[in-house]
Amino acid sequence: MIKKNIQRIIQYRMCLLRFQNLGFERIFSYTLAQEIGVSPEQVRKDFSQFHLRGNKKAGYLIQDILDQINELLHKEDIHKIIMAGLGNIGKALIQYKGFAKRNMQLVAGFDINPAKLKKNCRIPAFHPDKIPEVVKKEQVRIGIIAVPEQAAQEVCNIMVDAGIKGILNFAPVILKAPSDVVVQNISVCAELEALIYVTRKNEEK
Amino acid sequence: MIKKNIQRIIQYRMCLLRFQNLGFERIFSYTLAQEIGVSPEQVRKDFSQFHLRGNKKAGYLIQDILDQINELLHKEDIHKIIMAGLGNIGKALIQYKGFAKRNMQLVAGFDINPAKLKKNCRIPAFHPDKIPEVVKKEQVRIGIIAVPEQAAQEVCNIMVDAGIKGILNFAPVILKAPSDVVVQNISVCAELEALIYVTRKNEEK
Repeated sequence: MIKKNIQRIIQYRMCLLRFQNLGFERIFSYTLAQEIGVSPEQVRKDFSQFHLRGNKKAGYLIQDILDQINELLHKEDIHKIIMAGLGNIGKALIQYKGFAKRNMQLVAGFDINPAKLKKNCRIPAFHPDKIPEVVKKEQVRIGIIAVPEQAAQEVCNIMVDAGIKGILNFAPVILKAPSDVVVQNISVCAELEALIYVTRKNEEK
Repeated sequence: MIKKNIQRIIQYRMCLLRFQNLGFERIFSYTLAQEIGVSPEQVRKDFSQFHLRGNKKAGYLIQDILDQINELLHKEDIHKIIMAGLGNIGKALIQYKGFAKRNMQLVAGFDINPAKLKKNCRIPAFHPDKIPEVVKKEQVRIGIIAVPEQAAQEVCNIMVDAGIKGILNFAPVILKAPSDVVVQNISVCAELEALIYVTRKNEEK
């Protein structure tokens, strides 16, 4: 499980970058709070918990806080990632330009379908048998699972055995992994189902 | 904000369907709890909160609980969805077969790039100017935003004005919307950043 507080830190970072791009040098906790939809107390609590320091009264220096968050997130390092599944989601992620900006690098993709490996897919692509070799050689710790539901647990097992410690899972299935491996799920359907439910409830009010 | 409890109900449903497919007829709260990674008390609390009833001692009847959850989620209705942005994410979602299975229907896509509208994209596709017309005609309440960051807020405004009440946002930006509109964000980068952070922390232990 990933805690909400680190997810908020990442949201603050996104927000700080935007304000910096708009030309701002300083920001108050209540501005950040408003942007993220939390209370100013929550912002200050999160900052304190992650030892982010700054002058609260005159507003935080944006660059200073960004530097501190970047250090926290080890943003100076390149974070290598492998991805299993070169279907539609896989292809969308490969073409996504946001990873490089955030010092994340998709080092290899894997698919059991040889046709998907042959197509020019911008990153080296192999059969999943090669996962242990690539993980070892490239010292990868993070894996993305974008394979069909029925193959997801098997791929997860291969990744875990190979030494992957964090998995982002797009398959609509709850994966079993050892306690030292963090699995985070992204389910578009589940998010939509929740959204439909909440929207209906709001309309009934 | 979408509450965690309805997200867990959706996870329980996914899990119940899997057990049913495996041939099980009954399930205990501790099995469900173990699958989702919560306590059995949490499962019973969630069930009670959403008025899901069953015989706890002999195990819940899977079909019975599924029927109750489906009623809760209005699963018998077709839920219409529009999508702005026909880039890589948009295309992946259009090709995704899981929506139909869950009674969700992408009724139209929108993009400012005429070239993207012409390509055979399996759903009707228009310029974003047409959003109000389509939303009204099809009585859509849910929208997906998969446009670049700099266009996301503008699209959000158009959707809100057109009557959209729930937005699933893939753009890496925090959208501003009135309080009666629910915005849920999916950020692959933010999830990966959180995963990288937590994985590192675990390794330092």
